[in-house]
Amino acid sequence: MLFDFDEQHVVENIVHDIAECLPFTDAQTVTWINVDDVQTPGLLESFGKILGFHPLMLEDILHTDQRPKYEDYGEYLFFVLKMLDFDSDKNEIVVEQLSLVLGANYVISFQERPGDMFDPLRERIRKNASRIRKSKSDYTAYALMDSVVDRYFDVLEKIGDRITTLEAILAKHPKPETLRSIHKLRQELIFLRKSIWPLRDVVASMQRDESPLIHDGTELFLRDLHDHVIRVTDSIDTYRDMLSSMQDVYLSSISNRTNEIMKVLTLFSSIFLPLTFIVGVFGMNFRNFPELDWPYGLQGTIVLMVLVGVGMYLFFKHKKWL
Amino acid sequence: MLFDFDEQHVVENIVHDIAECLPFTDAQTVTWINVDDVQTPGLLESFGKILGFHPLMLEDILHTDQRPKYEDYGEYLFFVLKMLDFDSDKNEIVVEQLSLVLGANYVISFQERPGDMFDPLRERIRKNASRIRKSKSDYTAYALMDSVVDRYFDVLEKIGDRITTLEAILAKHPKPETLRSIHKLRQELIFLRKSIWPLRDVVASMQRDESPLIHDGTELFLRDLHDHVIRVTDSIDTYRDMLSSMQDVYLSSISNRTNEIMKVLTLFSSIFLPLTFIVGVFGMNFRNFPELDWPYGLQGTIVLMVLVGVGMYLFFKHKKWL
Amino acid sequence: MLFDFDEQHVVENIVHDIAECLPFTDAQTVTWINVDDVQTPGLLESFGKILGFHPLMLEDILHTDQRPKYEDYGEYLFFVLKMLDFDSDKNEIVVEQLSLVLGANYVISFQERPGDMFDPLRERIRKNASRIRKSKSDYTAYALMDSVVDRYFDVLEKIGDRITTLEAILAKHPKPETLRSIHKLRQELIFLRKSIWPLRDVVASMQRDESPLIHDGTELFLRDLHDHVIRVTDSIDTYRDMLSSMQDVYLSSISNRTNEIMKVLTLFSSIFLPLTFIVGVFGMNFRNFPELDWPYGLQGTIVLMVLVGVGMYLFFKHKKWL
Amino acid sequence: MLFDFDEQHVVENIVHDIAECLPFTDAQTVTWINVDDVQTPGLLESFGKILGFHPLMLEDILHTDQRPKYEDYGEYLFFVLKMLDFDSDKNEIVVEQLSLVLGANYVISFQERPGDMFDPLRERIRKNASRIRKSKSDYTAYALMDSVVDRYFDVLEKIGDRITTLEAILAKHPKPETLRSIHKLRQELIFLRKSIWPLRDVVASMQRDESPLIHDGTELFLRDLHDHVIRVTDSIDTYRDMLSSMQDVYLSSISNRTNEIMKVLTLFSSIFLPLTFIVGVFGMNFRNFPELDWPYGLQGTIVLMVLVGVGMYLFFKHKKWL
Amino acid sequence: MLFDFDEQHVVENIVHDIAECLPFTDAQTVTWINVDDVQTPGLLESFGKILGFHPLMLEDILHTDQRPKYEDYGEYLFFVLKMLDFDSDKNEIVVEQLSLVLGANYVISFQERPGDMFDPLRERIRKNASRIRKSKSDYTAYALMDSVVDRYFDVLEKIGDRITTLEAILAKHPKPETLRSIHKLRQELIFLRKSIWPLRDVVASMQRDESPLIHDGTELFLRDLHDHVIRVTDSIDTYRDMLSSMQDVYLSSISNRTNEIMKVLTLFSSIFLPLTFIVGVFGMNFRNFPELDWPYGLQGTIVLMVLVGVGMYLFFKHKKWL
Repeated sequence: MLFDFDEQHVVENIVHDIAECLPFTDAQTVTWINVDDVQTPGLLESFGKILGFHPLMLEDILHTDQRPKYEDYGEYLFFVLKMLDFDSDKNEIVVEQLSLVLGANYVISFQERPGDMFDPLRERIRKNASRIRKSKSDYTAYALMDSVVDRYFDVLEKIGDRITTLEAILAKHPKPETLRSIHKLRQELIFLRKSIWPLRDVVASMQRDESPLIHDGTELFLRDLHDHVIRVTDSIDTYRDMLSSMQDVYLSSISNRTNEIMKVLTLFSSIFLPLTFIVGVFGMNFRNFPELDWPYGLQGTIVLMVLVGVGMYLFFKHKKWL
Repeated sequence: MLFDFDEQHVVENIVHDIAECLPFTDAQTVTWINVDDVQTPGLLESFGKILGFHPLMLEDILHTDQRPKYEDYGEYLFFVLKMLDFDSDKNEIVVEQLSLVLGANYVISFQERPGDMFDPLRERIRKNASRIRKSKSDYTAYALMDSVVDRYFDVLEKIGDRITTLEAILAKHPKPETLRSIHKLRQELIFLRKSIWPLRDVVASMQRDESPLIHDGTELFLRDLHDHVIRVTDSIDTYRDMLSSMQDVYLSSISNRTNEIMKVLTLFSSIFLPLTFIVGVFGMNFRNFPELDWPYGLQGTIVLMVLVGVGMYLFFKHKKWL
Repeated sequence: MLFDFDEQHVVENIVHDIAECLPFTDAQTVTWINVDDVQTPGLLESFGKILGFHPLMLEDILHTDQRPKYEDYGEYLFFVLKMLDFDSDKNEIVVEQLSLVLGANYVISFQERPGDMFDPLRERIRKNASRIRKSKSDYTAYALMDSVVDRYFDVLEKIGDRITTLEAILAKHPKPETLRSIHKLRQELIFLRKSIWPLRDVVASMQRDESPLIHDGTELFLRDLHDHVIRVTDSIDTYRDMLSSMQDVYLSSISNRTNEIMKVLTLFSSIFLPLTFIVGVFGMNFRNFPELDWPYGLQGTIVLMVLVGVGMYLFFKHKKWL
Repeated sequence: MLFDFDEQHVVENIVHDIAECLPFTDAQTVTWINVDDVQTPGLLESFGKILGFHPLMLEDILHTDQRPKYEDYGEYLFFVLKMLDFDSDKNEIVVEQLSLVLGANYVISFQERPGDMFDPLRERIRKNASRIRKSKSDYTAYALMDSVVDRYFDVLEKIGDRITTLEAILAKHPKPETLRSIHKLRQELIFLRKSIWPLRDVVASMQRDESPLIHDGTELFLRDLHDHVIRVTDSIDTYRDMLSSMQDVYLSSISNRTNEIMKVLTLFSSIFLPLTFIVGVFGMNFRNFPELDWPYGLQGTIVLMVLVGVGMYLFFKHKKWL
Repeated sequence: MLFDFDEQHVVENIVHDIAECLPFTDAQTVTWINVDDVQTPGLLESFGKILGFHPLMLEDILHTDQRPKYEDYGEYLFFVLKMLDFDSDKNEIVVEQLSLVLGANYVISFQERPGDMFDPLRERIRKNASRIRKSKSDYTAYALMDSVVDRYFDVLEKIGDRITTLEAILAKHPKPETLRSIHKLRQELIFLRKSIWPLRDVVASMQRDESPLIHDGTELFLRDLHDHVIRVTDSIDTYRDMLSSMQDVYLSSISNRTNEIMKVLTLFSSIFLPLTFIVGVFGMNFRNFPELDWPYGLQGTIVLMVLVGVGMYLFFKHKKWL
């Protein structure tokens, strides 16, 4: 998909042959080419040939396990970002690599799959008076990155909601599944952190970079973007701390319950073991057992047993177990 | 609410239309405009139009989930702070975002809700000889930030009190609720840390900044403010360490108690299980059981049982369980 | 093994006397000498004598417990790397030290044992049009390092697979062996981290270094290499975090099971201890025990026992243990 | 208390009116004024008025909850330190704030309470040939700080002794009080760390500072002081590590003991429950129970029970529980 | 003990009066004075007087609880190192402080006790062609430090061996003593780390230092030394990580065993408590107990008991406890 625009005009094309893009990238207007499926055979080679891209960069675009990075190749800048999305059906986070090449008057974005979060941006391009129409290609690149980072907040909000839910469960009926959910969230945050953390440096490097491709007017927007990325990473770290503390609480809530169960067990054992012993004594079959003939033997034994029971009760009361 | 003052005069107004403020912001006097409710529709747009504020800044003022930050927009500086307060009724910390815009001769403060901690400051403005009356707008901004930071100490003191109370409970009767309180405090501190920590950099940047809006005379006050913020963050970290150590102590106090309960259970079982077995033996109905006819069988059995009991007692004594 | 090549020619030799290498190292072509067994007696001394290497460096090559490092000796640069490989038979990671000496037109690589991961590289040298044939010796050194780092990804992938397997086991039937595997992986990652981490600085120093031996054209490749190394170390840290979290989960899964076992034990004890006591009462041999003569004594006792059993059941239901 | 001295003379005074100090501070001799009780009403105001001190500094002197810090006010330097002492009666650490103002030829020290660790220093001032008499005011300030830091070592030694004692207890009979002592020491170290850590930066800033009030000759002494402070903070961190490791050991020693107790319980239960069952069988009152009439029934049963007992014993032997 | 040497000559003396050393230190040859016992009364004072050493340095030499450090006193440099050795008899690490003073043509080393690791070095000095004979005093100082650091590797290897042994024990029969050994090793590593860590900065400072006492030719050797120190500290950190992970494994192995013991206990209780109850029922002495008169009552009861036993067995099978 190709957008070519300046303040007055906008051209929107679906391109099948990369050679068609060439006239647009040369023109003074800003061209945004969005490649839907980076794995299309031959596609990257054509870009490399036509626009003279460095083979190392093309390799990075193709292998979608890059970390976010920023590289200055002189005539063009290269960015890698991770697009995150929350798949509510599968209840998991979906990652896709977005590679951006920013040239003097073009931006090329490479996705792994069709489908993205750039539709509002496309609308803004189509609108005449929007800032993106008045700005250079670096603003378009910023706008793409900003859309990606904005989606991070949505994903984090989802995670925040899940943490709040887990907190509530933890306070009432912690179960083994609660722990498993906490653990799963932690692993996801470890993974998120790895995907997002390097972006801090990416945006900071863009701000510092002297490249003529990034104009002064965009600097304020990059500062804002940097601020957003820091907020995202701060939240991830905060969530990690919270989950780690929740896991501790879960563990001690189990210990607590074991403790309580033990109390009940000990209580029953300590009361009934002596009593059973006493009745056992009077069940012995000794011929010479004069106590058995006492007229109030039974009653005396019952009194004895009540005393033992009350004694145990007081003992546990004293131990603060009741 | 609007204050316009210099060393000689002070004007105090409640303004409903922002256009009324304009003459004040232009004058050579210092103007402090305090906006009570940042969500009032149209309000921020008016500010933007009249004073020429950057749209990114207005957005940050409106979205009150910013982290504390400091941004230099050339003609004005922009700060975001978090106002914290302790709501004794709900027993929780209340957060409100305070955005400050510092211009050559004005300070505009944006709150989320009416009600703040600036009344003592307003009194000082009304008093003739106060330093704030003699200084430029940057001192007013400092004074606002200082009021906010001073309130942090109150909040931390409340948390410190709660920690001391929990320590005392922990030493005497730790209960599951104790752990839950420790956990809640930890989550609150994680949250506080996130709200306050970036302020260190904010104030440090203000000190380093070359902006002509910050005069040399204010530098000493900023240093003092920086020192306060560091004290706050130090305390938060110290409290976190203490709570983490308290949680460990709680966990091992449970283990200890489980251990003690186990001892009692084992004691009872180990004494009464053998005894019950012995009396059971003599309760068997074998026809050919000559021991039952012994004249001192009963007495002998009792002696045996006493020996077993004393033996177990000595065994446990030896194991240091008694 | 010796390769001597430039854009037009390539000479491949197996050399037994180091003196034979001398003409190659002097020529303008690039010479790569690969020493298979660094422990061969007299070999390093000959290199030292013929090429004038510093004795400290020769010592470092010989003692293969170095950490990755980079040292600039003026006329030549010295690198130490760790070659890692996963031995599927023994299910463990194998380490070998690779020392590289990079001179103006030669690269000498010292291995501990024959056998390496450089065969694809050798193929590329034999091919005429390959970049390595057109470049200087620094590119050959880069290509060697790149081959080593590429293998790291394979090793990490193996570890990642094992973690995924362990995660699945942990979720279903955690066993003591699961923990032992987690622990073993953690120790391996500690070890990996030690072997790889310093490589970050090695490559970063190469990039920064002003040495005339490293040409501008190689810089982009070094940047790419640096990026790879960072990805490796990031993954190691992520895996460590994950394993540490998995260990916590294992521990609490044990606590959970202990808890569940305790419940069963307590249940049985609390139901049968009272019942056994009751039947014991009616087994006493008191002569004067009128209840035994009651016509419905047995039935009444059975009713009593059922009531006790149901009571215990309701009690545990209430405690949420059933 | 006031000392005024140079190489030849020393004047010692107890001053009640601050105005009396004025002539001393102006003279070319070094003047050390030691204020015993910083809370004396009006005292700080007088200093502020007479010597022109900045109100922010006076405030810091008055509020004795400052962290150690160093501030350069141009004509004078301001230090805050924490004096620590170990109160052997109460078995706790006592803290007092010491504020120092260093001017061109005076040093003013503000304590919270009478009583300090400066008596040896006073003796050195009274002695003619001492270095302090030959040096400028900055050396006096250094000497005061050095006395304070030297006392830290005493306090740390006390803590070190307590840790050694706890280690010994932990190895022999760990008790709940042991844990409580470890926890108390940890909290104390958290607190100590907070009081001492910032002093590193304070002394480092003094060394770096270009202030004409600090002369070159004092630099070596400051370096020595810096070294002492680092040793103190290193020791605190080491002690923290040790206590944290001790707490882990305590926890596992409890688990160990629970484990051992469980073994005894299981042993007794597993041996006597089957035996009691067997004797119970032969205590049944079935009319038709021919085994009871066997002539060697009793002996057979005893043999059976011995076999069961020995079997259990071997089972536990096999499980390595005995 | 005194060595005075240059390329041609070497003089070896045992000196009793420090004044005798003076002519050597002045000469153009390199002089190494090794002081065996730093506590000898009057010795340090003599050095101070004769060679004009700074009192702060003499104090540091005397008090052997310094951390490793490096101080430049202009005409001479001062180093503190820790000599570590492993006392196989007591199975513990022995520490001794080594203070080095490096002047233009002398090196003075101060030990706490006679006996050291410098004998190989002495041999090298006695040999004519050795590098140490051809170099300046700074190389002698380097050689001393290198001997100390080389011994660190021996000590670490011993610790590494112990860790491997503990790992093996941990995998087979973990015992409380295993934990105690792990804990002891951890405390030792905490201590080692404190003794060695600052040496990194010491050697790094030497490398950076502009002091004319350190010649360019020694730089490569210092780089090598730096590398060794980093390897030592890396190993310490790795060992700490490993021990900490081993402690976790120990803890969970206890939990595991408790869990297993609990299972056995629960098994026995759950099978024999119901059975004992059943036989108790038929041991009741009710007159009216027709079941006792049934001809197959006993057989029926036995069948019932077998059913109960098998039921319990299947229940535990189902719970995966068997």
